[in-house]
Amino acid sequence: MTAPPSMKAIVSITFREGVLDPEAAAIARSLQGLGFDAVRNVRRVRRIELDLATADAGEAERMARAMCDALLANPVIETYGIEVARS
Amino acid sequence: MTAPPSMKAIVSITFREGVLDPEAAAIARSLQGLGFDAVRNVRRVRRIELDLATADAGEAERMARAMCDALLANPVIETYGIEVARS
Repeated sequence: MTAPPSMKAIVSITFREGVLDPEAAAIARSLQGLGFDAVRNVRRVRRIELDLATADAGEAERMARAMCDALLANPVIETYGIEVARS
Repeated sequence: MTAPPSMKAIVSITFREGVLDPEAAAIARSLQGLGFDAVRNVRRVRRIELDLATADAGEAERMARAMCDALLANPVIETYGIEVARS
């Protein structure tokens, strides 16, 4: 028996240029307050790894894109990138 | 004039094997509820990109590791990886 086909879609969601990320700003301030003076800027990325029951990389990417548009990302303030790999 | 030296440290924080991630489970259920039946598993990664005022990659990695241990990651339930790149 072989394992059922599966692809991994990796979604990376970031705030659009110019959108303030208060949590990233708080992390930067906290690190500086702990003495990490070299910290210039902090940026957060939400990365979501999806195991998908398909053997087709193109289909996996289309599904991941539809999931971003339907639920995972907020298009008003966020953008996303998708990578697909065999899992 | 040249720009001051700067390195980017990319920290990827994940839950340890066996630690339940309720938010990832909720995302999986919501996607399945929206009709994305191909979703088998969802894993979240917290990615934090740090711009650091140093030209030394080794120093950047040491600083990022110290920041993970001091603030960014919870060693009880999380592990982290660090990549360093010229920014």
